[in-house]
Amino acid sequence: MASSSTFSAWASSRSILTPKATKYYTEHICNYQNGCPLRQTHHAASIAASTGTSLSKSSLKNGFKCRALEVETQPSISQGKKFQLEDIIEAQQFDRETLISIFDVALEMEKVEKNSPGSQILKGYLMATLFYEPSTRTRLSFESAMKRLGGEVLTTENAREFSSAAKGETLEDTIRTVEGYSDIIVMRHFESGAARRAASTAGIPVINAGDGPGQHPTQALLDVYTIQREIGKLDGIKVGLVGDLAYGRTVRSLAYLLAKFKDVKIYFVAPEVVKMKDDIKNYLTSEGVEWEESRDLIEVASKCDVVYQTRIQRERFGERIDLYEEARGKYIVNRDVLDVMQKHAVVMHPLPRLDEITVDVDIDPRAAYFRQAKNGLYIRMALLKLLLLGW
Amino acid sequence: MASSSTFSAWASSRSILTPKATKYYTEHICNYQNGCPLRQTHHAASIAASTGTSLSKSSLKNGFKCRALEVETQPSISQGKKFQLEDIIEAQQFDRETLISIFDVALEMEKVEKNSPGSQILKGYLMATLFYEPSTRTRLSFESAMKRLGGEVLTTENAREFSSAAKGETLEDTIRTVEGYSDIIVMRHFESGAARRAASTAGIPVINAGDGPGQHPTQALLDVYTIQREIGKLDGIKVGLVGDLAYGRTVRSLAYLLAKFKDVKIYFVAPEVVKMKDDIKNYLTSEGVEWEESRDLIEVASKCDVVYQTRIQRERFGERIDLYEEARGKYIVNRDVLDVMQKHAVVMHPLPRLDEITVDVDIDPRAAYFRQAKNGLYIRMALLKLLLLGW
Amino acid sequence: MASSSTFSAWASSRSILTPKATKYYTEHICNYQNGCPLRQTHHAASIAASTGTSLSKSSLKNGFKCRALEVETQPSISQGKKFQLEDIIEAQQFDRETLISIFDVALEMEKVEKNSPGSQILKGYLMATLFYEPSTRTRLSFESAMKRLGGEVLTTENAREFSSAAKGETLEDTIRTVEGYSDIIVMRHFESGAARRAASTAGIPVINAGDGPGQHPTQALLDVYTIQREIGKLDGIKVGLVGDLAYGRTVRSLAYLLAKFKDVKIYFVAPEVVKMKDDIKNYLTSEGVEWEESRDLIEVASKCDVVYQTRIQRERFGERIDLYEEARGKYIVNRDVLDVMQKHAVVMHPLPRLDEITVDVDIDPRAAYFRQAKNGLYIRMALLKLLLLGW
Repeated sequence: MASSSTFSAWASSRSILTPKATKYYTEHICNYQNGCPLRQTHHAASIAASTGTSLSKSSLKNGFKCRALEVETQPSISQGKKFQLEDIIEAQQFDRETLISIFDVALEMEKVEKNSPGSQILKGYLMATLFYEPSTRTRLSFESAMKRLGGEVLTTENAREFSSAAKGETLEDTIRTVEGYSDIIVMRHFESGAARRAASTAGIPVINAGDGPGQHPTQALLDVYTIQREIGKLDGIKVGLVGDLAYGRTVRSLAYLLAKFKDVKIYFVAPEVVKMKDDIKNYLTSEGVEWEESRDLIEVASKCDVVYQTRIQRERFGERIDLYEEARGKYIVNRDVLDVMQKHAVVMHPLPRLDEITVDVDIDPRAAYFRQAKNGLYIRMALLKLLLLGW
Repeated sequence: MASSSTFSAWASSRSILTPKATKYYTEHICNYQNGCPLRQTHHAASIAASTGTSLSKSSLKNGFKCRALEVETQPSISQGKKFQLEDIIEAQQFDRETLISIFDVALEMEKVEKNSPGSQILKGYLMATLFYEPSTRTRLSFESAMKRLGGEVLTTENAREFSSAAKGETLEDTIRTVEGYSDIIVMRHFESGAARRAASTAGIPVINAGDGPGQHPTQALLDVYTIQREIGKLDGIKVGLVGDLAYGRTVRSLAYLLAKFKDVKIYFVAPEVVKMKDDIKNYLTSEGVEWEESRDLIEVASKCDVVYQTRIQRERFGERIDLYEEARGKYIVNRDVLDVMQKHAVVMHPLPRLDEITVDVDIDPRAAYFRQAKNGLYIRMALLKLLLLGW
Repeated sequence: MASSSTFSAWASSRSILTPKATKYYTEHICNYQNGCPLRQTHHAASIAASTGTSLSKSSLKNGFKCRALEVETQPSISQGKKFQLEDIIEAQQFDRETLISIFDVALEMEKVEKNSPGSQILKGYLMATLFYEPSTRTRLSFESAMKRLGGEVLTTENAREFSSAAKGETLEDTIRTVEGYSDIIVMRHFESGAARRAASTAGIPVINAGDGPGQHPTQALLDVYTIQREIGKLDGIKVGLVGDLAYGRTVRSLAYLLAKFKDVKIYFVAPEVVKMKDDIKNYLTSEGVEWEESRDLIEVASKCDVVYQTRIQRERFGERIDLYEEARGKYIVNRDVLDVMQKHAVVMHPLPRLDEITVDVDIDPRAAYFRQAKNGLYIRMALLKLLLLGW
């Protein structure tokens, strides 16, 4: 999971306007130029960065990828405040302004209709879904997003084969091969930090679709976007986070991102064994976000704009099935909870759900979790558009 | 397998002209309208239907989906006799007129050529193939059909993961998520009745690509279509059904659908242990269809327009391998059978075949089984067109 | 692996100008013509060929597929010397002239840019990737090639299911079904010779993407193409083949194809247990190609234009892990090897690599293996274009 140390400010120096993908194509449209192999450019540089030889990673970022000065010398673009997205690796890379800008694009994506010109903006682009562990829901959402914009997809759900014990290829070698076949890589991996390694290696954009217990930034974005769409605002909201707060990466990322908005109040409602860890609590305090822990879901629900329920995962409890059974039955969102919720408030859930939300809640208009899943499509459409075409 | 009780008349009240898909898009092009979440419409209604709360399923069908009155008030369309197809769930939903109409569209599909304008009619549409058990043949046929018409596909062959024991998501929840990513769902499931549950939940069309021992309606349609194309008629034909008649869902569905035509005669040729069950025999009798059982394949073949051979499946025999071996060797279609068949007659088989048709039959022009497989493509193209665009 | 007997001259009589795919479509655009089933044409003929009944395979090839005379009567095409490619089955089917012609097309493919008209030349065409064993790298390369040219793909990585022991369908039956759904088949199989059987059956083109220990002709083509692109010539080159020369099909095919060029010198550098076999050595000698074996990688590297390293596979050694460990550590391409290599020389590798090339080599511009992988895309684009559209 994300440790507190990774909550440090994300490099705002990544301020360039040309998407990684466009640059890559401009410079490396083929292996060879004027009949000679392209031997001295990006490729060698990125290899240097990942193997730690002559070029340091920061010199790579500054020298090869970052062109902050160009912003100054291209006043006609007048988008100086928008940072170009190069890769989507972790929730921490987004500041308030970037979030709002992405949400504006996602809103546009909601209006993209079949067969309209807007739906072909990614025609000719190829996305590789490189999944080292299956996650059908996330994969289909990304692939739908790409295809809704006219793009094409290369799918692999058994990417582990690339790096099987028998063959032993490194992730870096795999990425260097796959980037030759596609324009953008969406990667799911079982290892924390894998997405960052991939992004360092690749000359094309990489989107982290979940790397082990680490990050799942597109889920974090769609959660915040859903609150914006459902409640109509992000400043001044009250959010109850319920269920597995210790291990659930979604609630941790959500708490982190909500800290970027004003006058937010967060309630933690969790069984003792899976309560929110100190790193997030300390971070919220340091950012001036009000929070409190509660054991009374009904009372919290009556005060909140959003009740964000999560699934308690059996695998966290090892042999202690008794603790699992006790924890999972403790906080259920049912009609009783709905009865005390305000009319404008909503119930959210990252899905899949078991019985932590009873099915009779589904019919209530405040059940927002399937709309939330659909919002994942718009967020992913927005990110694909931004990474491949820019703002 | 389909029990006799399911042979009751299919609700002809599903008489609306707007495809489910079109309606869905018109009404729900995005999650939100005028800035407010769409909370009171279809979604809540369909959830109500499936959870059995405030709205009954029939009220949903009548209130939300059926607009029979519109037929009256839109005389310019002049298609009042064609029922709009909303979902393809079971063979019993087709009457004679609908079958003929679908076959007319399939015939048009045979003429769709690459790059002609007709081949882009589904451009911008997205089909999800949600396969809970693998069936590569069926999946490829559907995906080819969609792509031949310019549509796009989201594939999953490991849909079980959605609802794995560990995660425990219901089929209904999965459908509600996937319908957010696609325009039509083609589902294969290991459980009888799953397709109907999916269709009740989904706001977009669902096609049953086989649900356990239950239904496989597109196979039934392609079988009847093949007889029409090969023999040139459906009234007055003589058909020999050979092989596993007890468990084979294809021959059961075929017999059911043939009963919709006039002066049909059906011969059953099966080993004793897998002979045709009484429900179908009684149904045929009640519909005035002549049938008889025979143990003489040669004699039947000499009289029939169609010899429909099927594979005898070992798994039906449990420990009794001896019975299996006896049954499978009993009725083989070989050159001797061909020698007595009429010149215009054909041999059909749903494939895959083992040795119940010898390979030296393949070269005979009356071997129609690979043409039959190809006809599956045209039928599926026709259904995709009808469900997404209407007649 | 390819035995010496398969190195016999490939039938140059396959000299026709119309691609198999085009012919197939012209003649068999649908199952039926003028209302009658197409019962006497190609289909029966190909079945005859594969079952060895009335038509022999050679009469099929001469009678049905070959139209050499057309070359004479169509002088305006003026490509009489270019043999139409019908299937890609083995390295032995390419002569020097065909190789050069394919490389010219591959070079054009490097220039195909996104959204340019050239990138839609295969629009409306459908490729089926029928993989009986997974090979994600090869599959993605082919699928990328098809999509970069505007074509569409039907994917199956579990094609074994078609012919599972339980179901027992023959490869020929599977091919006859799949050819009804697609325009070209790319097949990976675990059995040597499977691709040739598929091509004999299919009325559409078949590309062998590796059949067991047998052939992998597109790898062989991309290897030779890479030498041409990197070194600028094929005549007069010096190539060091390093590593597993006994079992590696890539080095065997490469040696075979290099023999088609003039003044080539080949060095074999391999541990004793996996040294090059006599069939290839004898073939090279018979073709007048100079070769020698060496145990000094440094000395060979200093003289060569190309150092072609390969992975030594543990599975070749059975229980003798000690022999494997000794063999794999023997010849490593590292900075010491680079230091003696000429400035214009390159290091190649079919990938994946383990530690037979150290990662600090990657940064050197002479490390050509990732460019080599990318060249696989261009070669496959060229082959798809040639098989579907002709020269």
